[in-house]
Amino acid sequence: MRMRLEHVGIVVKDVDAARAYYADLYGCVPLTPVVDEPAHEVRVQLLDAGHGSMPSIELVEPVGETSRVAAFLKKTGGGLHHLAYAVADLDAALTHLKSKGAMPLGAPVPGAAHKVRTAWLFTPGRELIELIELPDA
Amino acid sequence: MRMRLEHVGIVVKDVDAARAYYADLYGCVPLTPVVDEPAHEVRVQLLDAGHGSMPSIELVEPVGETSRVAAFLKKTGGGLHHLAYAVADLDAALTHLKSKGAMPLGAPVPGAAHKVRTAWLFTPGRELIELIELPDA
Repeated sequence: MRMRLEHVGIVVKDVDAARAYYADLYGCVPLTPVVDEPAHEVRVQLLDAGHGSMPSIELVEPVGETSRVAAFLKKTGGGLHHLAYAVADLDAALTHLKSKGAMPLGAPVPGAAHKVRTAWLFTPGRELIELIELPDA
Repeated sequence: MRMRLEHVGIVVKDVDAARAYYADLYGCVPLTPVVDEPAHEVRVQLLDAGHGSMPSIELVEPVGETSRVAAFLKKTGGGLHHLAYAVADLDAALTHLKSKGAMPLGAPVPGAAHKVRTAWLFTPGRELIELIELPDA
């Protein structure tokens, strides 16, 4: 099973302020507008990390107190949160990772920024990862 | 100032075990052998994250109890640790980031895995970042 790093997810308090900060410090420019992802109670925006569309930096702002991301922000003040991998076949990747002991966090849901299926897992290595189904991955 | 994401640094207890884990779960293959970086009291190895040489995943294993990375491992159990950016001119990038409030953590040192100059900074956004001077960045 081969997966490609698709983005690095960074939790922030305010996606608009963070976008300005990443532009100012690192020269990162947006790849997408700010997108609501109600399935995860977050607002997200992808920034170009110098490699075009992949891998990018995903700014993740929690919306509402019940978001899992809100708990992370409260505990840590924000920062590096997850790695997302592109896979050609989400179901095959889920089967593979489950066979290695990874636990899916719910069923696959649409990722608003990509309009494709995504899934979250907690791995035996104590990582939070996201899988994104892209036909050309 | 434009910077390119060069690697994602992940702190691990044992770089050899982690390399096997990343190969098994994600299909990541090594880009380099395991390299000692005495300046940071770590052993590191770069893995291909599906994009060839950049950006890669850097496994970072602390060596010795006084390593800053050892404290991170003890506190967190390991995981996402830093982002490294490639810059064409390290001195210019340091001047730029210092003007934005970033604090260098010591003087530039050679990064063993690249044989180039590297520098570490703590940013106003409370990020730990590494700069790597690459002529073609």
